[in-house]
Amino acid sequence: MTDPDCIFCKIIARQIPSFVLYEDASVLAFLDIAPFEKGHALVVPKQHAVHLTDLPDSALAPLMPAAKRVAELLLKRLPCDGFNVLQSNGRCATQVVPHVHFHVIPRWNGRAMKWISGSYDSPEEIAAFHRRLTIA
Amino acid sequence: MTDPDCIFCKIIARQIPSFVLYEDASVLAFLDIAPFEKGHALVVPKQHAVHLTDLPDSALAPLMPAAKRVAELLLKRLPCDGFNVLQSNGRCATQVVPHVHFHVIPRWNGRAMKWISGSYDSPEEIAAFHRRLTIA
Repeated sequence: MTDPDCIFCKIIARQIPSFVLYEDASVLAFLDIAPFEKGHALVVPKQHAVHLTDLPDSALAPLMPAAKRVAELLLKRLPCDGFNVLQSNGRCATQVVPHVHFHVIPRWNGRAMKWISGSYDSPEEIAAFHRRLTIA
Repeated sequence: MTDPDCIFCKIIARQIPSFVLYEDASVLAFLDIAPFEKGHALVVPKQHAVHLTDLPDSALAPLMPAAKRVAELLLKRLPCDGFNVLQSNGRCATQVVPHVHFHVIPRWNGRAMKWISGSYDSPEEIAAFHRRLTIA
């Protein structure tokens, strides 16, 4: 169910810190540290699997309800005008971390879309985004 | 639950023909006629909603299990080396049809990824892809 060498399994187990946005019994969502747009989140099944096609339906079913919760947060708190959900399987599809993850990427009207990773300007900036998305 | 002016609701109701790949009680999947790559499929909830955030969890839960079935078909029958799942909300995120849909896009090793729509060379070619993906 978990892979001791997987960075996302370590994040889920809290062995590596992350900026958590949402958690339930089978899903963890946290900020991507190399965002396409600032506020870009990852929605990750707790069960380890490399590809979407490796997960049982029971692990797949909770993913879009969780992505919805995260998207609602982005739309309310950033606020953005829309969002993309993107999931990649295989290097040919730009998958980097070999643990299934859904990117939830905020988008804004009139702003060119970026499909490649950028960065936060500082460690303080990602922490500020996290507060903005999570503090009531 | 359905919008009489929505092209995807009409496809679901079989008022407009499509190349169906998969169907269950709450989801229909069919070939995109303007594919990023040939074999590109759409996974669509039967319940009409414009954005992911407009759907109840009960309509969201069956979507990734259905996307998995479609991806398994692409991986087995084309065959491709990987795939992307992409869903867009709002014009700023490149959403065109205002009914939730997940793109399932086949990808190949060593081949540059296209994030824009192309076309089949002929009506016969999309029909041939449909046969290749569906006939036992």
